[in-house]
Amino acid sequence: MIEPDIFGVYRDYIFCLNSQDWPKLGQFVHDGVRYNGEPIGLSGYREMLERDFFEIPDLYFNVQLLISDPPYVACRLSFECSPKGKFLGLHVNGKRVSFTENGLAPIFETNS
Amino acid sequence: MIEPDIFGVYRDYIFCLNSQDWPKLGQFVHDGVRYNGEPIGLSGYREMLERDFFEIPDLYFNVQLLISDPPYVACRLSFECSPKGKFLGLHVNGKRVSFTENGLAPIFETNS
Repeated sequence: MIEPDIFGVYRDYIFCLNSQDWPKLGQFVHDGVRYNGEPIGLSGYREMLERDFFEIPDLYFNVQLLISDPPYVACRLSFECSPKGKFLGLHVNGKRVSFTENGLAPIFETNS
Repeated sequence: MIEPDIFGVYRDYIFCLNSQDWPKLGQFVHDGVRYNGEPIGLSGYREMLERDFFEIPDLYFNVQLLISDPPYVACRLSFECSPKGKFLGLHVNGKRVSFTENGLAPIFETNS
């Protein structure tokens, strides 16, 4: 089922991340955002992303698959990047790594 | 959009995992299965699960959220368990941990 709007919003969100356009993050991420079940708020979410880009300078979110079951979207993101130090407990030290990650989140329209 | 069949198949798959009913795994997992992009085959998939249950004896897959955009399903699984040794690079040593994981997979009907 194609949902152009929900997909468009999600792609704009990924573009915002890849551009590290943090002032725009609030257009996509609600202040009640949770990460792995923990309420971290917009500021905590932004800090997490800024830390990710600091630790992985060439971080790039690549959308491999995007599906929608409103209000939810799910995506498979793929990464090819070079974390500076440790990554997932491994001493990567700038070596190139590839991995995928699945995301699942509700998307709601707001007037704000 | 409610898709009872696709959801039913997915829940039966999760029941198969939680029951560690490995002879039935082939009813749910295709031999061309990939894990994080790597082709590991049904036998590799089973070995991975058997290793998971060996390292985490009280492993239990709890479906927190399940959405469908045929032929795909996406789910958020939550876990509360006690890995015996290291887990994600951390020395857990039997302590109780909670985490969530998102999954995304195609479901196809077969006649086999």
